[in-house]
Amino acid sequence: MIVVSHRGPVSFQRADDGTFTARRGAGGVVSALDPLLRGRDDATWIAAAIGDDDRAAVQADAVSVPGLAVELLALDPETHRLHYDVISNQILWFCFHGLFDSAREPVFDAALHEAWDAYRAINRAFAEAVAATAAPGDVVLVQDLQLLLVAGYLAELRPDVAVTHFTHTPFGSPSELAMLPDAVTAEIFASLTAAPAGFHTEHWVHAFRLCLHERGNGDGADAFATTFGPDAPSLRDVAGGDAAATAGASLAERVGDRRCIVRTDRLELSKNIVRGFLAFEELLTTRPAWREQVSFVAMLNPSRESLATYRDYRSEVETVAARINDRFGRGDWEPVVVDTRDDFPRSVAALQRADVLLVNPVRDGLNLVAMEGPLLNERDAVLCLSREAGAFDLLREHAVEVQPFDVSQTAAALDAALAMDTDERAARAIGLRTAALAHPADRWLDDLVHRARPARTAD
Amino acid sequence: MIVVSHRGPVSFQRADDGTFTARRGAGGVVSALDPLLRGRDDATWIAAAIGDDDRAAVQADAVSVPGLAVELLALDPETHRLHYDVISNQILWFCFHGLFDSAREPVFDAALHEAWDAYRAINRAFAEAVAATAAPGDVVLVQDLQLLLVAGYLAELRPDVAVTHFTHTPFGSPSELAMLPDAVTAEIFASLTAAPAGFHTEHWVHAFRLCLHERGNGDGADAFATTFGPDAPSLRDVAGGDAAATAGASLAERVGDRRCIVRTDRLELSKNIVRGFLAFEELLTTRPAWREQVSFVAMLNPSRESLATYRDYRSEVETVAARINDRFGRGDWEPVVVDTRDDFPRSVAALQRADVLLVNPVRDGLNLVAMEGPLLNERDAVLCLSREAGAFDLLREHAVEVQPFDVSQTAAALDAALAMDTDERAARAIGLRTAALAHPADRWLDDLVHRARPARTAD
Repeated sequence: MIVVSHRGPVSFQRADDGTFTARRGAGGVVSALDPLLRGRDDATWIAAAIGDDDRAAVQADAVSVPGLAVELLALDPETHRLHYDVISNQILWFCFHGLFDSAREPVFDAALHEAWDAYRAINRAFAEAVAATAAPGDVVLVQDLQLLLVAGYLAELRPDVAVTHFTHTPFGSPSELAMLPDAVTAEIFASLTAAPAGFHTEHWVHAFRLCLHERGNGDGADAFATTFGPDAPSLRDVAGGDAAATAGASLAERVGDRRCIVRTDRLELSKNIVRGFLAFEELLTTRPAWREQVSFVAMLNPSRESLATYRDYRSEVETVAARINDRFGRGDWEPVVVDTRDDFPRSVAALQRADVLLVNPVRDGLNLVAMEGPLLNERDAVLCLSREAGAFDLLREHAVEVQPFDVSQTAAALDAALAMDTDERAARAIGLRTAALAHPADRWLDDLVHRARPARTAD
Repeated sequence: MIVVSHRGPVSFQRADDGTFTARRGAGGVVSALDPLLRGRDDATWIAAAIGDDDRAAVQADAVSVPGLAVELLALDPETHRLHYDVISNQILWFCFHGLFDSAREPVFDAALHEAWDAYRAINRAFAEAVAATAAPGDVVLVQDLQLLLVAGYLAELRPDVAVTHFTHTPFGSPSELAMLPDAVTAEIFASLTAAPAGFHTEHWVHAFRLCLHERGNGDGADAFATTFGPDAPSLRDVAGGDAAATAGASLAERVGDRRCIVRTDRLELSKNIVRGFLAFEELLTTRPAWREQVSFVAMLNPSRESLATYRDYRSEVETVAARINDRFGRGDWEPVVVDTRDDFPRSVAALQRADVLLVNPVRDGLNLVAMEGPLLNERDAVLCLSREAGAFDLLREHAVEVQPFDVSQTAAALDAALAMDTDERAARAIGLRTAALAHPADRWLDDLVHRARPARTAD
């Protein structure tokens, strides 16, 4: 088995004496895959070298990971930047999450077409690395939107290996895909129909099929849904650790014995943080009985701050929070508590302490927080969950539904959650925990393996 | 027959002595309908009183129009403002044109829900005015996105009259409609399926049906396409008038004997003006032979300047144009000529003078300029036309196709248009003129009448 993902399980740091220290790689895909693959001697993980130190480790032949066959690809830095920062993060991410401000973005000019060429080249490099490594008949599991073209290239390079592509994000609507150049969408769909295409839930399978249908290619596609919940043991380790205890004590001091609405998110446009605060403001305005009774605790990890649109969004988030605190705060009551340190134990402590968990993305492939929260929480927190999150398909009967663009509806959902009686909270909490544990990652990986088949392009 | 539209055929101005002068109403719907209805004694036109003077004319019983039975509704100014400025122009227009910057807009808070109540109330007032005026069995033709709910209300109030609704804009995609609150979309779809729903082209019929399909209501809807081209005689009047001649002479002085790419548009986000300039910049960059040979003449009428997003867009347009002129301008060659006076004869003169006409909206219900241009033009201008404009369905075989988000593709389309040989230009120009004349407005009106049937809601 070969797993192919953009980020790998390790990242290297070079010391002054030329030796390399391995650290665990970042990101949700890595967290899910690492415990499954470690110790398996039938698996190879191919990923990109991230940054100069990783590239140096490749050149020094220093990439070795205990219990795991890892191959890092040393890619041309500028080509890799165009592939990742420009196409993956600013084009495909925005397209699949429906985030384009279409009067202004995207602008597919010569520079962006060149970036697409770079995206192609990196995907090609991954496919060639797979082709060079795979034994006849191997299973190749390609991960996520950085590698959309790999399945298609493998159809040419290695028609003997069995391939699955899995997309961890949402999939866009026909009108969103139509904003990409014709050649770009043609290549994406050619590759995603070359091998079975997996998504977290039926919602995105449907979105994918709808695009194919609008392209006059409705029938043939082999698309399926399979997903995974959090890694409960490792969550429990963090929850039981000193850092979470310290963070919990500090939070308790800040909010006292008030109720807490909690959110923990990357500071990411799709997470819909501003509308969440506006819903809390409407709650305080229209249901004044909650004033001084409830604080909104937002643990927000800064993200992609090299991009102006993310910096702008962060400042919008902070401005709205400050305005609400100015308007309503009194005595020792801080209505909105915003913490933008990147500190996982602190997020865990907030999830333990929550009375209500707000997860209201405008669109989200799955959203693991919606499942981590119920596993960590100690107060039968009510989950207010966006219908546009993939996790909604799994948790809908135990959550309070949120329409993420409708701030008044979100305020009503928060009100219902805060007012919910103890028995119903307890019953829902059991339902949420059960559902969160019902999708072990090893079954997800098995699904990808069993679905795999030789890649074939239409032509 | 009763025609119901937001803007009517006249607008009044009150003099100091209390008398009223009628002026022709503004907008494309009025231009199409006025010549068809004037002189018909079987037709009544119901529209809103726009502004204080119109309302005063209603109160003074001074609304009388030669050859036309007109009823203006004096609406509560604040309710009307919320209906028109907020819901029609900032919500429905943005939704149907796919213009929401979804991380930020829409924010359906209490104020916006209240604006929706106002939209409802105004639609109700229109429906009640129709109900009070209509004779048994009358045909009622409801126009456009300001009045989406009228057909549904008529199903209750006057199940005996025959109704058609016609939408002059595009229709949104399922994911775009899903950004509106559930009650809002439910009311819109209930009304638009209560009576036959007309759109300019099959493209929007398909978009409408796709939404219904995604709502699990694919079959029943009675939706159809019918459209109208420009009013050729009145265009010819303007084209032959002194004002157009003067504007033409002044334009000739400014551009000399260079080739002209022309666009004439409202300064509207959906018109995609910035990407048009960027495509011209890429043309000059990548095909330097066109430098000094071609000017881009943009006649842009300022629009909705009370909204910050339109003011911002205007400044982006002017900034890009200035940058291109700074970068490429030399001697007496002004690469981009921008004129933002609201002056129709000036636009007509530019359309007469064009060698290439660029119509590249990100989305447009029809786009009359794409048909007016060929009728006015004197140089067999090549039409570069966005596939996202309704007019593309009618003109595609004679136009050069534009993917409006793909600036490089647009630059290539402009290049192909400029380089096209005389014979092909002439043949295409004939095709465009023929197609532009093939959709007389009276046939469109007949279609609406013949489709009309009693409105019925599903419940």
